[in-house]
Amino acid sequence: MTGEHAVDLNCDLGEGFGAYSIEIDEVVMKNISSANVAAGFHAGDPMELEDTVAYAKEYETAIGAHPGLPDLLGFGRRQMDVSTDEVRNYVTYQVGAVRAFCDRAGVELQHVKPHGALYNMASNDETVATGIIQALTELPDSPTLLALSGSKFASMAEEAGLDVRHEAFADRAYNQDGTLVSRSREGAVIHDSDRLARRAVKMVQEGEVETIDGKTLDLTVDSICIHGDTPEASEHVTRLVDAFEKEGISVTPLRNL
Amino acid sequence: MTGEHAVDLNCDLGEGFGAYSIEIDEVVMKNISSANVAAGFHAGDPMELEDTVAYAKEYETAIGAHPGLPDLLGFGRRQMDVSTDEVRNYVTYQVGAVRAFCDRAGVELQHVKPHGALYNMASNDETVATGIIQALTELPDSPTLLALSGSKFASMAEEAGLDVRHEAFADRAYNQDGTLVSRSREGAVIHDSDRLARRAVKMVQEGEVETIDGKTLDLTVDSICIHGDTPEASEHVTRLVDAFEKEGISVTPLRNL
Amino acid sequence: MTGEHAVDLNCDLGEGFGAYSIEIDEVVMKNISSANVAAGFHAGDPMELEDTVAYAKEYETAIGAHPGLPDLLGFGRRQMDVSTDEVRNYVTYQVGAVRAFCDRAGVELQHVKPHGALYNMASNDETVATGIIQALTELPDSPTLLALSGSKFASMAEEAGLDVRHEAFADRAYNQDGTLVSRSREGAVIHDSDRLARRAVKMVQEGEVETIDGKTLDLTVDSICIHGDTPEASEHVTRLVDAFEKEGISVTPLRNL
Amino acid sequence: MTGEHAVDLNCDLGEGFGAYSIEIDEVVMKNISSANVAAGFHAGDPMELEDTVAYAKEYETAIGAHPGLPDLLGFGRRQMDVSTDEVRNYVTYQVGAVRAFCDRAGVELQHVKPHGALYNMASNDETVATGIIQALTELPDSPTLLALSGSKFASMAEEAGLDVRHEAFADRAYNQDGTLVSRSREGAVIHDSDRLARRAVKMVQEGEVETIDGKTLDLTVDSICIHGDTPEASEHVTRLVDAFEKEGISVTPLRNL
Repeated sequence: MTGEHAVDLNCDLGEGFGAYSIEIDEVVMKNISSANVAAGFHAGDPMELEDTVAYAKEYETAIGAHPGLPDLLGFGRRQMDVSTDEVRNYVTYQVGAVRAFCDRAGVELQHVKPHGALYNMASNDETVATGIIQALTELPDSPTLLALSGSKFASMAEEAGLDVRHEAFADRAYNQDGTLVSRSREGAVIHDSDRLARRAVKMVQEGEVETIDGKTLDLTVDSICIHGDTPEASEHVTRLVDAFEKEGISVTPLRNL
Repeated sequence: MTGEHAVDLNCDLGEGFGAYSIEIDEVVMKNISSANVAAGFHAGDPMELEDTVAYAKEYETAIGAHPGLPDLLGFGRRQMDVSTDEVRNYVTYQVGAVRAFCDRAGVELQHVKPHGALYNMASNDETVATGIIQALTELPDSPTLLALSGSKFASMAEEAGLDVRHEAFADRAYNQDGTLVSRSREGAVIHDSDRLARRAVKMVQEGEVETIDGKTLDLTVDSICIHGDTPEASEHVTRLVDAFEKEGISVTPLRNL
Repeated sequence: MTGEHAVDLNCDLGEGFGAYSIEIDEVVMKNISSANVAAGFHAGDPMELEDTVAYAKEYETAIGAHPGLPDLLGFGRRQMDVSTDEVRNYVTYQVGAVRAFCDRAGVELQHVKPHGALYNMASNDETVATGIIQALTELPDSPTLLALSGSKFASMAEEAGLDVRHEAFADRAYNQDGTLVSRSREGAVIHDSDRLARRAVKMVQEGEVETIDGKTLDLTVDSICIHGDTPEASEHVTRLVDAFEKEGISVTPLRNL
Repeated sequence: MTGEHAVDLNCDLGEGFGAYSIEIDEVVMKNISSANVAAGFHAGDPMELEDTVAYAKEYETAIGAHPGLPDLLGFGRRQMDVSTDEVRNYVTYQVGAVRAFCDRAGVELQHVKPHGALYNMASNDETVATGIIQALTELPDSPTLLALSGSKFASMAEEAGLDVRHEAFADRAYNQDGTLVSRSREGAVIHDSDRLARRAVKMVQEGEVETIDGKTLDLTVDSICIHGDTPEASEHVTRLVDAFEKEGISVTPLRNL
């Protein structure tokens, strides 16, 4: 059972490829409730998928597929000119592959969160958003979609009948229109763990975040994105879960919200 | 309902990639009962998968996944030094991806047939055979395995409890031990459509084939492999189904056998 | 020796990959003077490169490298968000690879022509244009650049000191600003061989083309792009060279212009 | 100027890909004399190539190309069934690409050392050895070949007229026939830095190594392979160069030997 307030903490996992691995902080693994597992296009491979699903299962972390653009060289971070049908089929392919590893391990595929440029394009471009939404709608037992809180993408998916959860970024500054401040602008990334934790608490308790211009933005927050491969990862997540505990906010996978 | 004798005719499909397409003969499409759909490692891609599954559905052809080695450059025809776990995970990944397209189209994933070097290695190498068998065993609703008739691979899969169907090659010469005569040897490939048709009829009716040395080899024949992209494809399949009709042999997908 | 007017005819070559091949019309091969050889990123591979360089050499066709974006799945036709340094290094890599095959075959690497989306982006986007220009400038014995006639890209390359040749499309309609009419618009592609031939003659003799709006556009024309893999290819090139012959226009590689 | 004895120390470099990087120990970089730069097939990419060539140049390390099999997923460590022509063209392509980066940076491409499975196959399989030798022979200014000391490959390359240098492994146990003891066997890898340094000194001074069975094997040693990405790398190379200094053995690139 969860307390008055509950939130999911999600983190990208399984983003290695072949001989390359990306270490995830142990403290992060212990505290996240959902993992977005790379599906093989921007990162991840079948061996990595087996290990990652087993790893998430061991930590009792709920599993989602993390489909990306077919750009291993660019780690799926580069926007590409893709059609709705291309996006739709890329997502179907990758979600199908990840689900097979979940089925095999006897765990549920809880959700789908697009990766990198696919995530950003979906938030801003209906062509891409539609492709993802169609793919999830067509799959049997459509998994939950984890989308940028307040985005057109999220509302389009809700209108299409998908189960949608809203994601916020406690370590990123927001513009008044709900978009994230570009990383190139000063103040775009919050490095201070305490400030990050306070922002997260406010997001969950009040459904609000202070924008970069000092105003207030309403924000539905079902899940907060955690980075697991940075030097600050452990510090950030420790402060955040400490603050949550003090405030009686429970951390729980998307499916329990 | 099928007659006294029935057999499946299977053919590889969806082996294009991106801008590249491989034309399948129309006559072949009309007469095969099962299609092995390339799954993205040796050939095939998400757009191709959508089209191929729709195409097979239109022709009422049963669908199987055709997983290959991760060697697009070599079309999956080159043996690679892969471990049991690599094979197992490659197959899980590819079958999961193909199954998602089948689910979406509302058709069943009937079977799995390994492609090229993976097929040949499975027939001869327990390391590889075990990987494929494990992958299929672990999947929910394990699809039927289509394996080389009389191979160690086929019997290993049966012992593991899989539903196994035996495949024969009417256009290939056989050695006494049930292996195919290497293509480099004269007489390895039967080009004459009538002879091919007679061999196919004998395979189905008597469970026998004449070896390259003129002896008789017993052969369980559930399915005969048809090539759809050669100049002779149309002629071969026309003669073959004519001969089947004359003999009262019905052509039906694996799942009906 | 060339007549009063001379022009190069260029065509893309070697755009197969692995088991996939793209047939080039024999009539086209006999009549083109320069070949753009796919370099391995959008199409082409080392085996294809060997064959293509040998093939071009046999037909006494001058050879250029045809670098593309790292998008085999999209055949290099999809715009990607790439930086100047990425473009620069992608071009260096691919040109180096093609040059090695030329060196080995004892033929000169005459030119470089970017492929598909890289070509289009270079024509319109200084970020991309700069990357290509830097790559060619830095290479020893900088090859000639074949660029869209009248483009900012062409003038930037000239200012940077590169040897630049201007390319026109006899089979494509032009806008008044020198850009090609989008393929999605009616009348964008000229299918009539005679009209195509007349346009080509006018381009070479008068340095002019009629725009889609019936006005006149000045155009420097060193080379005309020929497609070698369409059903109309043979007809188009036959009419074009017939018209050239009648008008005393000689066809000769870029290096002779 | 080099002392009575001189040897090259070579190390693999530039084996990252896209977002993945492989850290090379700083102490190793300061002490090696030749770098084998990954060429894009098993690892490495155009951005990585630029950085790596610049990095090696900064440390005054001579540069070689390190071509591998087209198996990024397997890091080029898995044997594949490749033909002589495939190997030949794969090597031509990759060496051409690396040379372009060297040319651009104004440094010489000193040598070629095959990577991983390609190295091992070349040492044992004439099909593969011949492909590499042909590729290097056909290139202008054929780079030096760095091959396993005492291998058939090395002698074949010498007979073909290539400039060949012999490589030894101070951290690996040897069989009596000059092959390396398989890593799976106990004692195959020498972990003790002092023992490793003594072996290296003996190799250089006496052209000998003690085999795993305690016998003596004659070994031509032009270069010793150093690993730069292991926890022990710094310790190993520090002891080794200390021992060399004490013995008056100078470290110098292959081209100075």
